[in-house]
Amino acid sequence: MSTLKALFLNCTLKPSPAISHTEGLARKVIEWFDTMDVESEMVRVVDYRVPTGTSSYEGEGDEWPVILDKIKAADIIVMCTPIWFGVRSSVCQLVIERLDGTYQERNAAGQYPLYNKVAGVVVTGNEDGAHSAAETTLFNMTHLGCTVPPNADTYWVGDAGPGPSYLDVGQDSLYTKRTTRWMAHNVVHMARMLKANPIPAEGNTFAEEEEHQPHGG
Amino acid sequence: MSTLKALFLNCTLKPSPAISHTEGLARKVIEWFDTMDVESEMVRVVDYRVPTGTSSYEGEGDEWPVILDKIKAADIIVMCTPIWFGVRSSVCQLVIERLDGTYQERNAAGQYPLYNKVAGVVVTGNEDGAHSAAETTLFNMTHLGCTVPPNADTYWVGDAGPGPSYLDVGQDSLYTKRTTRWMAHNVVHMARMLKANPIPAEGNTFAEEEEHQPHGG
Amino acid sequence: MSTLKALFLNCTLKPSPAISHTEGLARKVIEWFDTMDVESEMVRVVDYRVPTGTSSYEGEGDEWPVILDKIKAADIIVMCTPIWFGVRSSVCQLVIERLDGTYQERNAAGQYPLYNKVAGVVVTGNEDGAHSAAETTLFNMTHLGCTVPPNADTYWVGDAGPGPSYLDVGQDSLYTKRTTRWMAHNVVHMARMLKANPIPAEGNTFAEEEEHQPHGG
Amino acid sequence: MSTLKALFLNCTLKPSPAISHTEGLARKVIEWFDTMDVESEMVRVVDYRVPTGTSSYEGEGDEWPVILDKIKAADIIVMCTPIWFGVRSSVCQLVIERLDGTYQERNAAGQYPLYNKVAGVVVTGNEDGAHSAAETTLFNMTHLGCTVPPNADTYWVGDAGPGPSYLDVGQDSLYTKRTTRWMAHNVVHMARMLKANPIPAEGNTFAEEEEHQPHGG
Repeated sequence: MSTLKALFLNCTLKPSPAISHTEGLARKVIEWFDTMDVESEMVRVVDYRVPTGTSSYEGEGDEWPVILDKIKAADIIVMCTPIWFGVRSSVCQLVIERLDGTYQERNAAGQYPLYNKVAGVVVTGNEDGAHSAAETTLFNMTHLGCTVPPNADTYWVGDAGPGPSYLDVGQDSLYTKRTTRWMAHNVVHMARMLKANPIPAEGNTFAEEEEHQPHGG
Repeated sequence: MSTLKALFLNCTLKPSPAISHTEGLARKVIEWFDTMDVESEMVRVVDYRVPTGTSSYEGEGDEWPVILDKIKAADIIVMCTPIWFGVRSSVCQLVIERLDGTYQERNAAGQYPLYNKVAGVVVTGNEDGAHSAAETTLFNMTHLGCTVPPNADTYWVGDAGPGPSYLDVGQDSLYTKRTTRWMAHNVVHMARMLKANPIPAEGNTFAEEEEHQPHGG
Repeated sequence: MSTLKALFLNCTLKPSPAISHTEGLARKVIEWFDTMDVESEMVRVVDYRVPTGTSSYEGEGDEWPVILDKIKAADIIVMCTPIWFGVRSSVCQLVIERLDGTYQERNAAGQYPLYNKVAGVVVTGNEDGAHSAAETTLFNMTHLGCTVPPNADTYWVGDAGPGPSYLDVGQDSLYTKRTTRWMAHNVVHMARMLKANPIPAEGNTFAEEEEHQPHGG
Repeated sequence: MSTLKALFLNCTLKPSPAISHTEGLARKVIEWFDTMDVESEMVRVVDYRVPTGTSSYEGEGDEWPVILDKIKAADIIVMCTPIWFGVRSSVCQLVIERLDGTYQERNAAGQYPLYNKVAGVVVTGNEDGAHSAAETTLFNMTHLGCTVPPNADTYWVGDAGPGPSYLDVGQDSLYTKRTTRWMAHNVVHMARMLKANPIPAEGNTFAEEEEHQPHGG
């Protein structure tokens, strides 16, 4: 059983070395990955110079290609985002926008380059917004080619309104510990399945556009 | 290769025999399934008496158990919803709420009963709201145990504002035809993979809750 | 200063006399209204027979017209919804869908009939989803003609994952008490303003469609 | 009747002088404002150096304070955003995150500094996502203190899937022209009302926190 590669994209607003609660929860996932022959890498996106745009290269000084190479080399992509105003962070949205550029590429089978990768999400906030952040992000990742196994998200949020954050008070949450465990295992189970049996290039490429409609549909 | 079962839950607001544009698009998916040894069944939820609630049986006259049995027997569940006011229909939300009852059950491996099933969505509206309807629905389905392969949604919507619907003007949309084809194939590919190799009951059950934390985590 | 009328539409899934946590929080708003010469009425929608649909009358036995009359008579409409699967309830969605019927009517000035009414929302859940439920609902209400003053929502949710509900543990939340107070006051301030100075029928009716474009636009 | 000031925050991803379809639609709103004694200013946010963060000043080189001053001086704030992946742009999210800093300030009456300002939104995309972008943004603005009148959004989106954009094919949309007109007029009507009669500082400030609960609540 070969080692899998997992890439964590931490979409906190705060450059290193500021503490990141989202990274705190992501590291719990890494602890699980460490028990399952998965090699994990953490990237704090805001530490890189990533201009806004929707292509894979936005000109001189653009460091997105460095991150994109890591994404392409990974079997598992874990999007990690804080919640701001009830939704995912601007950095997370920026990452998704830049991934638009991958729609211009194909893998060897003619599919989008993120096919056969597995997506998971980690969300933290001092309050409300985890479902919104997770659902938008996982859905976007399926559009880009990723597979989402069951229970592929873990999050921690506190009660209504401002309050303490995950590393302050959330680490003992039974629910968050459970979903962290489930998420960690399910993305790995699925990544191993896809490594052994990639999604066949049947019915899901552009090449088939003309020739392949039922009933002339 | 055994025959797969696909269940389409049409969440239109209109009882039969009113025309349903959402069913119109769902039938395009069925055309593809017909070419892939998949047996399809269409259920128009509003034709059944399904009271609101979050359990699997809400008392005398509740016909949800009939639908739930079909869901449990299916390998592929395709949620089909129109858009109203920018989001999925009340009937779709009702179905999801009733599925809350399945959280009380386990499959033979100790997982949620929807594990190893695959989810897809079909959305139509005369305008805007498909991403919202699809993302919320697919995410909910992963919480319930389903797997979501890449490009697992197909939708048709028209320009901004009220206007004609899918069966009126949408059937020639290249984008919708493409995503229909991709969705149909990918949910089948994934269902075959999960049939051959179910997600192992490792790290994703309640039984393991106490015994199974890394570093005492 | 005349008495204002406030209508609370409680969109819980549970018929009376089941306890409703959402109603529990709504009643805190009513306590404030009682101090401000506002007459409050609470309607539990699920106690009425309201079939799905998008017109104001869906045929024999439809009790929506009873509720719609109350809506039209109110100065303030407070939508009250629990969270299920991260979003507003199916009953809340049903109410919004039925309000689609009001798009066919006009007030005396030629505007939508909900013009000059004020909307607020009350949301409770044992966890995450309040922003989503509130934002969708308030936005829909503005489309229908309502005005939304600042801080027009109040909600209570608990930590990540299942847990106790508002009436169990939420009543002392400083944040929820504050937002309840702000919401209650601001919807009343705005309702008084609109009663004294209705939004003029200039630029916001259909009658002007043809005659009234700048630069022929 | 005094002149009102309107600030348009264009949250396109593209720096000047690239064409912005979102600005194209915003300029239709400005045409209306020009007929109503409203002075309009357009700011393309990405032309400024605005680092991520949630305070009003993120250190040397941060140009957000320039934009924030314009926001504070405006009576009407129109958030203008393109749709990417079904939701508002990263730049729009960034603006909202930076406005978090205003929660630390009060106006002369003790309210949030954006009280008595009116918010509207302009959204364009080649397809689906306008409701999501508009609802999240308007809701956030009400949290920050703005009032949202009826029909305060205008948008244009095309059919499902990639395709031409607003300035290419959308300018003749009757629906978009209508909502542009309604939005333009209603934000002005409301801004004039709030200028004449600001929301009283009763029940909506922090100062009252301790002293002012009904029934000791």
